[in-house]
Amino acid sequence: MNYRMIGFLIGRILLTEAALLALPTVTAILYGESPMPFLTTALALAAVGLLLGSRKPRQSAIYARDGFAVVALAWILMSAFGALPFVLSGDIPSYVDALFETVSGFTTTGATILPEVESLSRGILFWRSFTHWVGGMGVLVFVMAILPMSDGHGMHLMRAEVPGPSVGKLVSRMSDSAKILYGIYLVMTLLEIFLLLAGGMPLFDACIHSFGSAGTGGFSNRNLSVGAYGNAYYELVIGVFMLLFGINFNLYYFLMIRRFRDVFHSEELRAYLGIVAAAVLAIAVDVAHLYDSFAVSLRHAFFQVSSIITTTGFATVDFNTWPTFSKGILMVLMFVGACAGSTGGGIKVARMLILGKTALSDMRKMLHPTAVSAVRFEGKPLADQTVRSVHVFITVYLMVFTVSFLLLCLEGFDLITTFSALAACINNVGPGLEVVGPMGNFSGFSPWGKLLLSFNMLVGRLEIFPMLLLFAPSIWRRRLIRPVQNGI
Amino acid sequence: MNYRMIGFLIGRILLTEAALLALPTVTAILYGESPMPFLTTALALAAVGLLLGSRKPRQSAIYARDGFAVVALAWILMSAFGALPFVLSGDIPSYVDALFETVSGFTTTGATILPEVESLSRGILFWRSFTHWVGGMGVLVFVMAILPMSDGHGMHLMRAEVPGPSVGKLVSRMSDSAKILYGIYLVMTLLEIFLLLAGGMPLFDACIHSFGSAGTGGFSNRNLSVGAYGNAYYELVIGVFMLLFGINFNLYYFLMIRRFRDVFHSEELRAYLGIVAAAVLAIAVDVAHLYDSFAVSLRHAFFQVSSIITTTGFATVDFNTWPTFSKGILMVLMFVGACAGSTGGGIKVARMLILGKTALSDMRKMLHPTAVSAVRFEGKPLADQTVRSVHVFITVYLMVFTVSFLLLCLEGFDLITTFSALAACINNVGPGLEVVGPMGNFSGFSPWGKLLLSFNMLVGRLEIFPMLLLFAPSIWRRRLIRPVQNGI
Repeated sequence: MNYRMIGFLIGRILLTEAALLALPTVTAILYGESPMPFLTTALALAAVGLLLGSRKPRQSAIYARDGFAVVALAWILMSAFGALPFVLSGDIPSYVDALFETVSGFTTTGATILPEVESLSRGILFWRSFTHWVGGMGVLVFVMAILPMSDGHGMHLMRAEVPGPSVGKLVSRMSDSAKILYGIYLVMTLLEIFLLLAGGMPLFDACIHSFGSAGTGGFSNRNLSVGAYGNAYYELVIGVFMLLFGINFNLYYFLMIRRFRDVFHSEELRAYLGIVAAAVLAIAVDVAHLYDSFAVSLRHAFFQVSSIITTTGFATVDFNTWPTFSKGILMVLMFVGACAGSTGGGIKVARMLILGKTALSDMRKMLHPTAVSAVRFEGKPLADQTVRSVHVFITVYLMVFTVSFLLLCLEGFDLITTFSALAACINNVGPGLEVVGPMGNFSGFSPWGKLLLSFNMLVGRLEIFPMLLLFAPSIWRRRLIRPVQNGI
Repeated sequence: MNYRMIGFLIGRILLTEAALLALPTVTAILYGESPMPFLTTALALAAVGLLLGSRKPRQSAIYARDGFAVVALAWILMSAFGALPFVLSGDIPSYVDALFETVSGFTTTGATILPEVESLSRGILFWRSFTHWVGGMGVLVFVMAILPMSDGHGMHLMRAEVPGPSVGKLVSRMSDSAKILYGIYLVMTLLEIFLLLAGGMPLFDACIHSFGSAGTGGFSNRNLSVGAYGNAYYELVIGVFMLLFGINFNLYYFLMIRRFRDVFHSEELRAYLGIVAAAVLAIAVDVAHLYDSFAVSLRHAFFQVSSIITTTGFATVDFNTWPTFSKGILMVLMFVGACAGSTGGGIKVARMLILGKTALSDMRKMLHPTAVSAVRFEGKPLADQTVRSVHVFITVYLMVFTVSFLLLCLEGFDLITTFSALAACINNVGPGLEVVGPMGNFSGFSPWGKLLLSFNMLVGRLEIFPMLLLFAPSIWRRRLIRPVQNGI
């Protein structure tokens, strides 16, 4: 374990967070609110960040296990500090509640313990939604974009933070890849803000909802979420942008460099859009009797499907009141999730495709044991190692889900609330059903329940392993075989 | 595809079923009821069976895909004919209902569409429970015990019918293995009947409940199931025997031949008993406030846990009224299921162990990529092929579950009823929660819903692949490369 380098990287991340607090500070000042909660937090972050990250250690090599540790610790500390403004401003007096809200923000979950949000100060509302934007693309990716680092080592960080079964560099230098990703992310977010402004949405609301869709988070500044506006144009813009942010960002880079074939032949993209189309149609028919016209039913079905499959969690209607079939589809979509390499959560469409293709091929082999068939995915043969890692991902995912489910049952809610609350948190969706439905909230859980759900949000956002491996004693062991001259 | 041999084997199975109908016929006569429903059915079975299975084809070689086809078709036809007595006797007028009840019987599910059973005729009650006993160990295993067949071919059948990730022959000859298994099964069933009789239970009831526990089925002749007796001794005997029938039968053979080490070192047995002990304790504490003493709470917890993990489905209390934590544990146990090579259903403890051990080993490799570690299970290194097959099993299981869940949502029941009904059927448990709880029944589902659930019961009992592969067009193709002199 390279403790110094881990400390250095975490220091840099905390300094970055301190810098990012400038935006809510400015917002608070503009709205005539006290900027003190943000300034105090930024000061604390800067102090700890400078202490840890002032000097880059001579030995900067990090390995897989260091990568897991940095990512997990960074996300925990970011959330621990990020919760302070909520407490200091008095908007969320309990620290555990504030931590839940912040973890929910950074992990782009969007689950809230607040029964209503319209009374919150502007600065706090801005910070709450801005955590979505920061967490969506990943803080380490951001730090890597501005911090020169050897590619091999950066890869360990990127692999631990970017969602999906495999991570490919866009360009040869890792920091350039990170810059390109953040560039696309920024431009798309600005475009959404612009389109919402063009439709007449106030700038503040446009920022909040664009942060929420860009990070696929789902925090709104309105109690009724996007439904509060009753505006079909806003719903269309946000609905489409949620879908766009749920697509693998590599594809946008391919568009930029005119590799159109790679985009249009992407199996994951086709499957993702196919699932969305099928789900929208099925739900629109199922809920048609609840609305005046099929067009309205289609509009609500599209927004809710886009919101849930991308694991954003905005709502325009209370889908908790929809028929069982529609609720069942949304529950399944929560687990499917968005595309790998997007800002969305869930298991990811790519993993589903790898699982499905492997299963079909293995079943074919049962019938024809001598037949030779190689499974291909995205134009390339699927390596056994990739398949195995997806299988292990699913196994560990189910194990964490089952244990968390049993523990959460102790809270005494009904089974649907318990199951859907957990599904909404581990898949980073936000709203579940019943008590935690789109018009409900998570305030009824005990502090332990909130911490358990926070843990699950981090497990989901970091795709399980970084968080779990923190508990492995051997991750904390120093590397003994390393040569002495490296100073560790 | 060796159509003649498939026809021959299915013919033999139908003849066997005709012979087995002798028992309910005698029961009906003894109780002064008309034996005609059974005789008519037996006659129909004998006619079709003789037509198909009169002459063994010269070419008796069968391959993996023939094995799947025989097993799947045999179970469907057995159920289709087995449903006739219910209709002919007038006890279940609708054929779809009767088919559901029979599939539920043979697959040892124990889910019922009957709101009450005490008004049924004795012959019908006997047949209903006897299907559990026949289905528990498997009809093909029975046919193999009495039909000489080359070992290589028998293996394909056994593999398709006996539950668990891998099937080992006990002795060198397959038909001897089958005889030993059925011998142990018969002796244990007789022992349970004897112990229940010794406690004062009437012979008829003792047979019914012993068939139900031996096959891990769960049909009772009392509306309140085993709870109707309010007798702690009966509950203890049935509770313990359910657990015993949930253990891999190979272990009983090892006991017979004094290979005690193999029994006591069985990882699956230890894990199974460990899960049972933990679940009983957790539930007993959770429901303690509902009962007069902790002893009563422990008694009910033990019986319900034993019934659910073995996927039997008997009940002594309405666990639908228990707190969420206890219901959550029971829901998880439904999926865990019993041991491989037992009469129980579910995913099986052995598969859980293989999944867990593989996941832990792969996570260790993430931290220490150069470390070499071989996963061992039951004293042997775990082959990659076995791990892969378990992963594919889980994948296809989840796929079937998800698709069936969405289709079943169309029935319009609440999510818990829908989810637990499906879980209870695919895992061959029987009762679920809410509408289909231990004091409820499945009569509210539409004919399509009942057929879908029947399909899932068969999928669960035959461990998915035989039923799914029936839909593969290539299974029906004749084998073209086979030499001409074989006459196919």
